[in-house]
Amino acid sequence: MTWEILTIIGTIAFALSGVIVAMEEDYDLMGVYILGLVTAFGGGAIRNLLVGLPISALWEQGHLFTIALIVMTIAFFFPKLWVTKWMKWGLIFDALGLAAFAIQGALYATSMGHSLSAIIVAAMLTGTGGGMIRDVLAGRKPIFLRNEIYIVWAMLAGIVIGLELVTGTVGIMILFVVIVVLRMLSVYMRWSLPHRTLSQ
Amino acid sequence: MTWEILTIIGTIAFALSGVIVAMEEDYDLMGVYILGLVTAFGGGAIRNLLVGLPISALWEQGHLFTIALIVMTIAFFFPKLWVTKWMKWGLIFDALGLAAFAIQGALYATSMGHSLSAIIVAAMLTGTGGGMIRDVLAGRKPIFLRNEIYIVWAMLAGIVIGLELVTGTVGIMILFVVIVVLRMLSVYMRWSLPHRTLSQ
Amino acid sequence: MTWEILTIIGTIAFALSGVIVAMEEDYDLMGVYILGLVTAFGGGAIRNLLVGLPISALWEQGHLFTIALIVMTIAFFFPKLWVTKWMKWGLIFDALGLAAFAIQGALYATSMGHSLSAIIVAAMLTGTGGGMIRDVLAGRKPIFLRNEIYIVWAMLAGIVIGLELVTGTVGIMILFVVIVVLRMLSVYMRWSLPHRTLSQ
Repeated sequence: MTWEILTIIGTIAFALSGVIVAMEEDYDLMGVYILGLVTAFGGGAIRNLLVGLPISALWEQGHLFTIALIVMTIAFFFPKLWVTKWMKWGLIFDALGLAAFAIQGALYATSMGHSLSAIIVAAMLTGTGGGMIRDVLAGRKPIFLRNEIYIVWAMLAGIVIGLELVTGTVGIMILFVVIVVLRMLSVYMRWSLPHRTLSQ
Repeated sequence: MTWEILTIIGTIAFALSGVIVAMEEDYDLMGVYILGLVTAFGGGAIRNLLVGLPISALWEQGHLFTIALIVMTIAFFFPKLWVTKWMKWGLIFDALGLAAFAIQGALYATSMGHSLSAIIVAAMLTGTGGGMIRDVLAGRKPIFLRNEIYIVWAMLAGIVIGLELVTGTVGIMILFVVIVVLRMLSVYMRWSLPHRTLSQ
Repeated sequence: MTWEILTIIGTIAFALSGVIVAMEEDYDLMGVYILGLVTAFGGGAIRNLLVGLPISALWEQGHLFTIALIVMTIAFFFPKLWVTKWMKWGLIFDALGLAAFAIQGALYATSMGHSLSAIIVAAMLTGTGGGMIRDVLAGRKPIFLRNEIYIVWAMLAGIVIGLELVTGTVGIMILFVVIVVLRMLSVYMRWSLPHRTLSQ
């Protein structure tokens, strides 16, 4: 039940994130739907692919498709409900999606009996995969390669779950909240990682 | 038999579409072949992946590889046969490929027992997948995200087949022709879908 | 044993190639790791996908992940060890990776009983897949579509192995060296393939 809610939150959040990018790029109605669906379901598709689940398991999530379509339709036709504040809401939703899908990816890989390093990679790919496809299709530099701490939080979810530092519903919920908060803090506090440029 | 012919038409059409883009971008001989093959077979690969068929089924299509290679070689070495008119032929072939692969994707998903929404998504991805990979590799904005009605016709194929509005060879052939005509009309009549830009 | 060494060389080479691109684009520490891992393991993932092996087989390569992470960490924190000469080393390593993975892809496809044309395509995709994903994510034109002979050497590996012109460890090692030398020669001698531009 808890997990179901997390999945729904993540799907809605990433769908809205795709809608926002599509509207910024002046796509038409179909472009908005496509980019929203790709963002919402792309991470799960990549995760299924990489951890060895059939990708076709996606199609069993009929209710998630329906929810995503409803949310995207509302967002497209009634932008005044939320556009003026989207910067703020967009970041929060994106953080929710990142946390939910990173944890999901790590749990899937764990249940498949993979090694710690594989669990970490699965968490990173699931949490960031949808956004990666979205940005590549829109011709943008992928958000997880930009200079703000992003994928580290997905990695952290993988480490915590892979080492079984948290278990059970309550532990996972706490982990989820912690990752969302860390992501938001890294935006507002402008945390960044070391760089090293090749000067030639 | 009918279906076999449709597949061959679609493969040739998308192979030529990749060749045209590669020549526009001044790629060398290998680049032309690669982009042509990716466009011709990419949509089927994505469809197989997403509906749960083994992607390796692609390799059983040896005769399609051969046909695509012959067509691309002719197009590369004898451009004067067709280049002056390619805008017109390119659009028609592209529409043929879109219709053939969208219908294929929908039929595959139907035969796997998926839900209506999954059938529609499969039609959209199969019809547009090859062109999407082509455009991303060539550094272009994917055609299905541009402001002309394109993916809607793939979607329509999915709806019609998913609802079993047509069945049998004759029904499918009629659907195929209707989709090609609608796509061509949407180009020549400049049909477009509603937009909504975020003004910030 | 020989093969194991080739795989390790290829993985290290492509990991370093991703690191170099990431540093050129001024990515942060995580961006460097991501692009390195994607380049090192992307080709194998695409090969597994296309020849019908489970992609999750990747996770059984735990020691390769560890090796790649160590090499990337050294390259990031001690760039002075190698940066001044990277142009030279980068090209050699890239050629080593191309040769190793192209041969691997061809051998896998052969062992699956695929046709000659499928073996050639598998060699091309495995040899160039990692670099393709790297370049798309970094917003660059894929190296295998640029105007220098590159993918032809992967194709050659596929042809030689598909026709069983070489067999056994010694034969494969000789093929490996020949492909590396041909790739390096094509860079230094500026070999190129025919072009044909559409002038409109």
